[in-house]
Amino acid sequence: MTNTEEFNPSEWIIDRDGNIALSIRFKERLFCEKSPYQTVEVFDTYDRGRMLTIDRIIMCTEVDEASYHEMLVHVPMFTNSQISDVLVIGAGDGGTIRELVRHEDIRQITMVEIDEVVVRASKEFLPTISSALNHPKLKLLIDDGINFVREAADNSYDLIIIDSSDPVGPAEGLFTKSFYQDVYRCLRPDGLVTVQSESPSFNRKAFVELNQCLKQVFGKERVHPYLAFIPMYPSGIWSLTYCSKKGAHPIQDFNRDRAIKFAQKQNLSYYNADIHQASFCLPTYIQKMITND
Amino acid sequence: MTNTEEFNPSEWIIDRDGNIALSIRFKERLFCEKSPYQTVEVFDTYDRGRMLTIDRIIMCTEVDEASYHEMLVHVPMFTNSQISDVLVIGAGDGGTIRELVRHEDIRQITMVEIDEVVVRASKEFLPTISSALNHPKLKLLIDDGINFVREAADNSYDLIIIDSSDPVGPAEGLFTKSFYQDVYRCLRPDGLVTVQSESPSFNRKAFVELNQCLKQVFGKERVHPYLAFIPMYPSGIWSLTYCSKKGAHPIQDFNRDRAIKFAQKQNLSYYNADIHQASFCLPTYIQKMITND
Repeated sequence: MTNTEEFNPSEWIIDRDGNIALSIRFKERLFCEKSPYQTVEVFDTYDRGRMLTIDRIIMCTEVDEASYHEMLVHVPMFTNSQISDVLVIGAGDGGTIRELVRHEDIRQITMVEIDEVVVRASKEFLPTISSALNHPKLKLLIDDGINFVREAADNSYDLIIIDSSDPVGPAEGLFTKSFYQDVYRCLRPDGLVTVQSESPSFNRKAFVELNQCLKQVFGKERVHPYLAFIPMYPSGIWSLTYCSKKGAHPIQDFNRDRAIKFAQKQNLSYYNADIHQASFCLPTYIQKMITND
Repeated sequence: MTNTEEFNPSEWIIDRDGNIALSIRFKERLFCEKSPYQTVEVFDTYDRGRMLTIDRIIMCTEVDEASYHEMLVHVPMFTNSQISDVLVIGAGDGGTIRELVRHEDIRQITMVEIDEVVVRASKEFLPTISSALNHPKLKLLIDDGINFVREAADNSYDLIIIDSSDPVGPAEGLFTKSFYQDVYRCLRPDGLVTVQSESPSFNRKAFVELNQCLKQVFGKERVHPYLAFIPMYPSGIWSLTYCSKKGAHPIQDFNRDRAIKFAQKQNLSYYNADIHQASFCLPTYIQKMITND
């Protein structure tokens, strides 16, 4: 059952960082294209549905993607009810957009994805994830998110979501102070940010450094990491981070009643009102990683 | 970085169940012995510390074991303050015993482990985990836990902890109704049980079936699954289950003040009062697995 002899690496995607790896077995590869930035592939796996990888790092699987996308979007949406203009950086697979368009009060979503190959592959091979990429409220730009926020007008967004891959390759600049200074400037005074902020277990260094960076830009009291179980990422423990410019606190200002009704009506898979609150409770060893700085 | 070419299976422990695998790279094997039940090995890994495997399934790593052992022990200990006699089934590595002996009010711990090789390997090669296996309050029996509870006296324990491996091999009988009927009978009226209850993601079937079994024995309202991030197990999302005979509710009867003081004084790694409460909040898809039965 677990003999190494039976493990044929050619049938598996091995998402590995040094000394730990998550592997998912696939039946066939449906898509492969080398873009100017990275190699984009879609696989049909045995029991995680279809899977998107970039440079062989797992981005999402059909079975597990809802946990990530729902937590990235609905946590900020239920702490500030005045969100009408949203900017999304990355998010090429479209899952974040699918969750955003569930909220009728949003007026416009601007999405800036650097790699059109990710969008094209997702539209063709991941229809349940990319289903809102042609939505009328969406303005989809193929562009560099770092340049985009540098040139964006002050005070122009209520919510900015950084839905990036890991801090290697084209996403590296999305983990820097100068990028977040621009994000901060573009936010309206009540504006919020949520960020994919890596695993405190698997990518401890990236998690801690990004936390320090965000605190320098937003202030210590306005940066709130939260956790989700994401089995499609190595270690399964993944952090997102909620930041506010001078606005709502993710627990004290949480609109619980609205979240309960919405989660039921929308038949969400992972997010519910209890999980919203629970996700901000951190194991002690993770609290310690980010309080001694 | 994630090329399959660089992945040499002979340097890795591959904990695999069908179509998903967690792999941890090791420097050397420190211990290997085939017992009458299973093959017990200890490895020195690159960044998870030492690691115990049984039939090449990861049991624990030094870096991540505290999350599992603290959650299995302290959750019941802070919902009923009258726990003096404890029975532990399994737990050969000793981590559960180490956490139990932190509680001074416990009078006696009876531990029933079927395989003396696990105990011996842990005592020699995992000293930080097995540190309490010679504790004066501990009565350690090498015996079959199923037979033990069958012959145990009625109403004799305040807490029974089932710290078992997966439901294959010698642990299979620990996932049956007849075993839990005996566990129920041995419990005092206010008694509690906590159980390693598998991953709702990685071992969905085992998780659901054990939940149904426990509800049949304890009654629906007295069975409470809770979750912990356990990066050393595949998928990282792992469940434990709290059951009470007719006693305390894990949230309503939670002694928060006592838990806060204890966690600080004992310098726990994972468990804290917020995590106690948060761990019972389940993602919606997991709630649904166990409410339609």
